[in-house]
Amino acid sequence: MQTWQVSLSARIDATRPGPLYMQIIQAVIRDIESGRLGPGTYLPSSRALATILNVNRKTVVLAYEDLVAQGWLATSATRGTFVSETLPETGTGAPVSPDPDTARTSYRFKAPPQRPLALSDGEGLRLDEGSPDGRLFPPELLVRAYRTATHRASRARAFQYRDPRGTPDLRRAIAAMLKAQRGLAVNESNICITRGSQNGLFLTAMALLQPGDAVIVEDLTYEPAVAAFRALGARIIPVGLDDGGMDVDAIEAVCRKAPVKAVFVTPHHQFPTTVALRPDRRLRLVELARNIGFAIIEDDYDHEFHFQSQPLLPIAAYAPGEAVYIGSLSKLLLPALRIGYVAAPSDKIDALAHMVSLNDGMGNTLTENTAALLMETGELRRHARKARKIYAERRERFADALTSILGDKVDFQVPDGGLAFWLTFRGDLARIEQRASAAGLHFASHRSYKAQRDAPSGLRIGFASLTDAEAIKAIEALNTAAA
Amino acid sequence: MQTWQVSLSARIDATRPGPLYMQIIQAVIRDIESGRLGPGTYLPSSRALATILNVNRKTVVLAYEDLVAQGWLATSATRGTFVSETLPETGTGAPVSPDPDTARTSYRFKAPPQRPLALSDGEGLRLDEGSPDGRLFPPELLVRAYRTATHRASRARAFQYRDPRGTPDLRRAIAAMLKAQRGLAVNESNICITRGSQNGLFLTAMALLQPGDAVIVEDLTYEPAVAAFRALGARIIPVGLDDGGMDVDAIEAVCRKAPVKAVFVTPHHQFPTTVALRPDRRLRLVELARNIGFAIIEDDYDHEFHFQSQPLLPIAAYAPGEAVYIGSLSKLLLPALRIGYVAAPSDKIDALAHMVSLNDGMGNTLTENTAALLMETGELRRHARKARKIYAERRERFADALTSILGDKVDFQVPDGGLAFWLTFRGDLARIEQRASAAGLHFASHRSYKAQRDAPSGLRIGFASLTDAEAIKAIEALNTAAA
Repeated sequence: MQTWQVSLSARIDATRPGPLYMQIIQAVIRDIESGRLGPGTYLPSSRALATILNVNRKTVVLAYEDLVAQGWLATSATRGTFVSETLPETGTGAPVSPDPDTARTSYRFKAPPQRPLALSDGEGLRLDEGSPDGRLFPPELLVRAYRTATHRASRARAFQYRDPRGTPDLRRAIAAMLKAQRGLAVNESNICITRGSQNGLFLTAMALLQPGDAVIVEDLTYEPAVAAFRALGARIIPVGLDDGGMDVDAIEAVCRKAPVKAVFVTPHHQFPTTVALRPDRRLRLVELARNIGFAIIEDDYDHEFHFQSQPLLPIAAYAPGEAVYIGSLSKLLLPALRIGYVAAPSDKIDALAHMVSLNDGMGNTLTENTAALLMETGELRRHARKARKIYAERRERFADALTSILGDKVDFQVPDGGLAFWLTFRGDLARIEQRASAAGLHFASHRSYKAQRDAPSGLRIGFASLTDAEAIKAIEALNTAAA
Repeated sequence: MQTWQVSLSARIDATRPGPLYMQIIQAVIRDIESGRLGPGTYLPSSRALATILNVNRKTVVLAYEDLVAQGWLATSATRGTFVSETLPETGTGAPVSPDPDTARTSYRFKAPPQRPLALSDGEGLRLDEGSPDGRLFPPELLVRAYRTATHRASRARAFQYRDPRGTPDLRRAIAAMLKAQRGLAVNESNICITRGSQNGLFLTAMALLQPGDAVIVEDLTYEPAVAAFRALGARIIPVGLDDGGMDVDAIEAVCRKAPVKAVFVTPHHQFPTTVALRPDRRLRLVELARNIGFAIIEDDYDHEFHFQSQPLLPIAAYAPGEAVYIGSLSKLLLPALRIGYVAAPSDKIDALAHMVSLNDGMGNTLTENTAALLMETGELRRHARKARKIYAERRERFADALTSILGDKVDFQVPDGGLAFWLTFRGDLARIEQRASAAGLHFASHRSYKAQRDAPSGLRIGFASLTDAEAIKAIEALNTAAA
């Protein structure tokens, strides 16, 4: 007991945050767990322990009382406080470190991939894959809408758990937007709010796929979508693409050989190459979906930013029974709000709502109603109009800078829409990436776009989030890496 | 063409929101898709169509120009505008309704269960399963923190995509809280922020489980957890419980027969029965996990509200290598913020981060930093202290009201902690539920707690979100249903 008291005293530290008596409770329980204090072992009297630990006796009394109340210790009127005899003998007697990182774990988690899906933060220059410029959105506008949404929720007792499909206000606002601007004949019962479009993809895949099901993707494609399908047990079948988008002949050939459950497609601005899926291919894709019986998962991730014409009509607008439509407010408003949505027939939305219940229960109602307010008041429209103008200009100047700085090292088309360029290089991209990274220039690897090894290589470089000066600096750094 | 013009005119409506020429674009594309306008078909001149539709000629010109730019139409200098001949013949020629709810779908989603996991909103009285009272939290406090977080993010360009583990500020704040108040020796690298504790459970299950893996749960248990494990392909093995919590002998017997991957447990306040897992069973559970090699998924969903002693030390505080610890700010702050977290060794957190990338990419950084600010400034602690006092009083008076109103129709123990009572009834619960629902009194079904049919029956009724007057009204309604 003498040794134990000394060891305990070494672990109690009055300068650590949190009440002292909780430190005593924790140390005693840990020592019981490790077998250092076996069942029946007597503890020092509260007076004796208080003296040794140099704490108020009341602190020890409180700790002992709690340990008795919780069943770790017991007391006898005559003999004092001891480790409960109902406890089993456990542990090795050696002290167990409470540090999770030095503990041996009794279980395994699936190992993450070596190259993370998300580009990590850090020092240096970053080129994104087509993010909007968050600086363009006035923060006070967001805060004001949040205040209104919060006070309303407070008055309406709406701080509790709610509909897994999202708040009625936001579903109504999204449905109205899709109806007025994108030709989808939807109402709020056709909308499920999700945590960004990635969550919309994930929930759709959960609702649709069984392990072993085949999903066709474009190659090149959006890695987080493919990884999500794979994680849910899907077999991924890549088909090629050209400047008219996905190869629909190849889809047909795949479907003839085996059942296909879904085709994942980014028809508006192909990810990563930015091209639009040609009308003839759209029509054939819909007809294939109808005849063969698969879902078109239509990811329209940056619909609003199209510069050559009006945004293209989504497939879901003319094939509402074949296309599950996925979008988000990340590009239109702010990625940090994490608001995405799925538009589909209402019975499908009810099925998705169940997946939401499994996945995270529901969305962030205050943020959802904040977004709804920004949509209802027209603030979002005004912001989008302003941002579109700025991005259109940045797109032009980014193209000029690419040409003037990188010259014939790079090949690209100015994209008709979306917030990124697709660049192909004469040099070896693996080497360019290595040199860029060493110089502190970060961007998503060309490998991330490939569903299979022999897909073409290129880089997707966002232009919208950079001022002209920032863009030039980044392109110059890229030029150095490509030298 | 004459008929088509008439049908088009019936579909164009200047009073609908959105630009008129987009209505024309949509109608033309839908008619091409349905086969009503075959490849090569000539369209009326813009002048003629404008006259028929009674719109400005420029509106039709714009629509035609966009349709040409997108590849749906083509023009010939001499012969006018026609449906592109590169398009395939598709559709039946019959008009296709754009309404997703009348369309036949080419795919199926997994059917949701007949009884949804979430109690739906609606008219009448609602008894929750242990929600906090959102009215106690001053909305302006939240708004002020949100303003600070938003302006800081705006200045720091932090509106973009970020770390899937959550914001550093919130991970630091949560780690500090777990260290000071719950005895977990963690730092920010041991924390992954999730969208509520349900999302923490889901991500943990994703990281841990392969289809076919066995997961032991308490019976009675938390249905959304069990449903999430099942959705990921787990086999669920329920074991019984009594007033000392989960039956650990039964766990041992199960483990002797077949490999077990995880034990899901709510050791602090058992869900739904509110009892604490006894120390001897905690020690044996940890030893089993260590010897057999499974994970203890420790869901400590309402840690801070314990009334009989200090909150019990989490298993993860003395078994950091065996227990994956899941908590949330839903009870402490507000459910609507959807902030949960997982605490585990940092390599496990990295594996979880990948699951976040698949699932929804990342959390809501503004909300996360809002919560971090409320924690750093001590506002959350102050609120928790105030709320704990109010809930302690409500607990007493709820117990009194149960006894005085329901009398011997009901049997219960006053819970040592948590925000709900577990009530067992003499009468038939199915009948009581039916009558209650018919009378507009809504609460979670007794069936929702059962992992298997022959588990005991009872109701979990939250007391914390109700004022005394509200509680009496609800208990009286329950009494009428139980008569």
